[in-house]
Amino acid sequence: MDTPDGGRVACTLEYTVDTPSEFVFQIAVTTGRAVHADEELSVTRDGAEIGAEVVPASHHGGRQHLVRAEPGALRVHYAAAVRRESAPPRRVSAPARVQALRPSRYCPSDRMGGFAARMFGGTDAEILRDVTDFVRGHLRYEPVSNATTDATDTLLAGAGVCRDYAHLVTALTRASGLPARVAAVYAPGLSPMDFHLVSEVAVDGVWRIVDATGLAPRASMIRIATGRDAADVAFSTLLSGGGLTMTHMEILAVADGDLPGDDPQAQASLR
Amino acid sequence: MDTPDGGRVACTLEYTVDTPSEFVFQIAVTTGRAVHADEELSVTRDGAEIGAEVVPASHHGGRQHLVRAEPGALRVHYAAAVRRESAPPRRVSAPARVQALRPSRYCPSDRMGGFAARMFGGTDAEILRDVTDFVRGHLRYEPVSNATTDATDTLLAGAGVCRDYAHLVTALTRASGLPARVAAVYAPGLSPMDFHLVSEVAVDGVWRIVDATGLAPRASMIRIATGRDAADVAFSTLLSGGGLTMTHMEILAVADGDLPGDDPQAQASLR
Amino acid sequence: MDTPDGGRVACTLEYTVDTPSEFVFQIAVTTGRAVHADEELSVTRDGAEIGAEVVPASHHGGRQHLVRAEPGALRVHYAAAVRRESAPPRRVSAPARVQALRPSRYCPSDRMGGFAARMFGGTDAEILRDVTDFVRGHLRYEPVSNATTDATDTLLAGAGVCRDYAHLVTALTRASGLPARVAAVYAPGLSPMDFHLVSEVAVDGVWRIVDATGLAPRASMIRIATGRDAADVAFSTLLSGGGLTMTHMEILAVADGDLPGDDPQAQASLR
Amino acid sequence: MDTPDGGRVACTLEYTVDTPSEFVFQIAVTTGRAVHADEELSVTRDGAEIGAEVVPASHHGGRQHLVRAEPGALRVHYAAAVRRESAPPRRVSAPARVQALRPSRYCPSDRMGGFAARMFGGTDAEILRDVTDFVRGHLRYEPVSNATTDATDTLLAGAGVCRDYAHLVTALTRASGLPARVAAVYAPGLSPMDFHLVSEVAVDGVWRIVDATGLAPRASMIRIATGRDAADVAFSTLLSGGGLTMTHMEILAVADGDLPGDDPQAQASLR
Repeated sequence: MDTPDGGRVACTLEYTVDTPSEFVFQIAVTTGRAVHADEELSVTRDGAEIGAEVVPASHHGGRQHLVRAEPGALRVHYAAAVRRESAPPRRVSAPARVQALRPSRYCPSDRMGGFAARMFGGTDAEILRDVTDFVRGHLRYEPVSNATTDATDTLLAGAGVCRDYAHLVTALTRASGLPARVAAVYAPGLSPMDFHLVSEVAVDGVWRIVDATGLAPRASMIRIATGRDAADVAFSTLLSGGGLTMTHMEILAVADGDLPGDDPQAQASLR
Repeated sequence: MDTPDGGRVACTLEYTVDTPSEFVFQIAVTTGRAVHADEELSVTRDGAEIGAEVVPASHHGGRQHLVRAEPGALRVHYAAAVRRESAPPRRVSAPARVQALRPSRYCPSDRMGGFAARMFGGTDAEILRDVTDFVRGHLRYEPVSNATTDATDTLLAGAGVCRDYAHLVTALTRASGLPARVAAVYAPGLSPMDFHLVSEVAVDGVWRIVDATGLAPRASMIRIATGRDAADVAFSTLLSGGGLTMTHMEILAVADGDLPGDDPQAQASLR
Repeated sequence: MDTPDGGRVACTLEYTVDTPSEFVFQIAVTTGRAVHADEELSVTRDGAEIGAEVVPASHHGGRQHLVRAEPGALRVHYAAAVRRESAPPRRVSAPARVQALRPSRYCPSDRMGGFAARMFGGTDAEILRDVTDFVRGHLRYEPVSNATTDATDTLLAGAGVCRDYAHLVTALTRASGLPARVAAVYAPGLSPMDFHLVSEVAVDGVWRIVDATGLAPRASMIRIATGRDAADVAFSTLLSGGGLTMTHMEILAVADGDLPGDDPQAQASLR
Repeated sequence: MDTPDGGRVACTLEYTVDTPSEFVFQIAVTTGRAVHADEELSVTRDGAEIGAEVVPASHHGGRQHLVRAEPGALRVHYAAAVRRESAPPRRVSAPARVQALRPSRYCPSDRMGGFAARMFGGTDAEILRDVTDFVRGHLRYEPVSNATTDATDTLLAGAGVCRDYAHLVTALTRASGLPARVAAVYAPGLSPMDFHLVSEVAVDGVWRIVDATGLAPRASMIRIATGRDAADVAFSTLLSGGGLTMTHMEILAVADGDLPGDDPQAQASLR
């Protein structure tokens, strides 16, 4: 797979806040080892900078930003220029492996073991390929899901959006005995542009990225957050308060150089 | 399909009743048109006959027996010699068709439309064949279900008993647009002997019987009750009271003459 | 309860049909005994009358109208002047009682027995009153539900529309051991006007009507269809085909004379 | 609350392993700050020591032990003498708070927000007290649940075991906006002795322990593992392989000195 050497990402989120509230945002890219970023984050209320507290995420070096907002116009802006070095794919650590085998809110793999056993088998690489093909063929890309939809609902409905594709791939591979989790990413080439969710599945000790939607090349994706499912990696989570309305959302993700192609049959990893 | 001309069935149910209770039993065969029965029903409490009220079932000529029992030893015994005449398969009436397309408690076809559309297609006969083959291959015969298990649970678990096979066939054909329901039957040849549940699916205007378990020949089965799912055809339902324990259950079903073979690929109907 | 002696109802449904399709409509009032109607039904395709087949509903004298429509503009219009005589409330028959105790698709009472037993108790009349008060206080009237929402979802969400109020009352009373079902009605006084769904619960051998929404007086309601839950009484059900779009829907329900008041604490019955 | 200064704990788990398998065990106590342990761990196959790899748990200093077992008789034995110092209750860190507000597999708080909002309110301490009282009164201690039962199932069933009590308390407080998680503990005084599961809920910045079963004094409990729900803290998780049978399980937990009393109205914290 052809590897671009970086990209630029940005997002702007605007809210009207009516009562004092706390939020956590997960919008900053995950850096480390082979990924570096020149980044800026600005959080303003009625135009005045109010700052954010950095809170480590539970997985894999991610960062969350905790914001305490009084009533007013809240604006969160993040931008980064990302440079990436060539690096071997990330190996699966023992704690990550154990955690990625446990059932989670939207990927209840404990309920799907029989279905997975009847439908998929063979080596781990074959299971990964067959689950990906199954999900790609089984789902229609339609906005039929809501915030409480889990992978079993999606399997039955035969439709969903990127969140649902990622949950179904994750749940079925996990139910087949492969460690599996999700990653929220900036995805250059995605149209319309939005935050994107993909699966990471452990095969032969290495995390492999799966995007059954096929909507953007995997090689250009830039990791934001890693978790068991969407519950862990939401771009915005209300912690306390409430009474807010999102008024504007804008996301940018551009690869340096040409957008690479993506061969769905080839394995790829997220750095 | 070779058609035996009848059979003998019987069942004995014994309970210890601790508080005054009402039950409905569905254990008498459905007669009419081409099916006749010489039958006896006895309901005793501590050895004294207490009788039962006949309550019509909502589907297809079935009979329920309502029993009011004071504390004591309750015994229900039913036996019948069934004679059947050759008859064309039963045609699907308009009211039965409409009812058999509606979702029900254990066959929530409204949740499974997408799954069914992706997995099955073609003519009604092809859908029936493919759903039957899928369920036969997908399920292991194991007692993993309980009284609240529905067809979506069974699809995910990949296992179940006759109730679950019938619910999954019914739900998937119904979700594919075919009218589908269940029938509780006496099933000569079943081992171990028990009440049995099968599906009836409308194809080309005729009710076809499906038993994806393949545990007994369809031609010998004798209908007890017909309904949308197991909720309608339970052999015993507590209406009021409670505090009872089943202490004994014995079921007999014998075909007149040799037990016929059953070609799973052939269509068959229940009279 | 003050009883008006009748009312006028009407509905007009318009669809664009793209492929040959079959529908069942349940829009005609249930007549009989104490309820009479002068009614007219018109079904047209591109302005030409195409007629409808009357199909008996499974409950309580209801009528369904089956329409076979070729592509074009389908219009269904129904209007009736309803006269009602004074009559004692309807007694609960044995078959209706048995059926109303069974779990159904949207009222899965078999899953809610423990919840109901902890929350409600006493006489049947007390259970009915307490369930009604609980549902009235527990739910916010908000359109959060969809076609697959059942009573357990509604209990957890704490919100819903008339369908959800009726399902939760029905499920909780049924789980408490009272026979319970739903009725689709024309409801003079409802605003905005729409088809309405209420519960009927058996207390002391009589069907009592419950509308925990309190949005319209029960005494003026006119029964259309009766069933276990919304699956049985939908005003429109697609039987085959598809590719249609509803383009217009208009409902009228007016009581003769003044709209009566409604004392939520008083028991009432639907004729 | 009277605080004992320690205790002794032990557990022995025996399995027959038929195919090469990997397990993670969570049976060692969580040490740190105010809790120390003299401990021993032995893992043998057919009597020969095979060792275990220590894998950090995702929460709060817990340890998992990963065991790779060839076919044979597997025996895991752990014992520890625990000493505890007096210490102020543990404060809730920002990452722990964020994680404890997210929905999880068995505590799907995102589905229960409306129910919680209608049933509970006031200060965080009042919510904690009222949820605890509700769960204590609402549930019967009965083994009706299985491995896939979540907090919504338990709420509906009105019954469960310690796992279910902990899940329901955790889900309802979390759905009310309080950070909430579970802790697996050794519980001196529990009868019959077993691994025990309790809730930890953040009130005024401090983790408070809740045990709605009331089956053992909270002050003597010794923490093993911490997580979002039982999926995180299972004492044994199969990672790969299978074909094993548990043949023996024995657990010991004894407090130094007399077992303390426990006032259910008083707040307590786990060290």
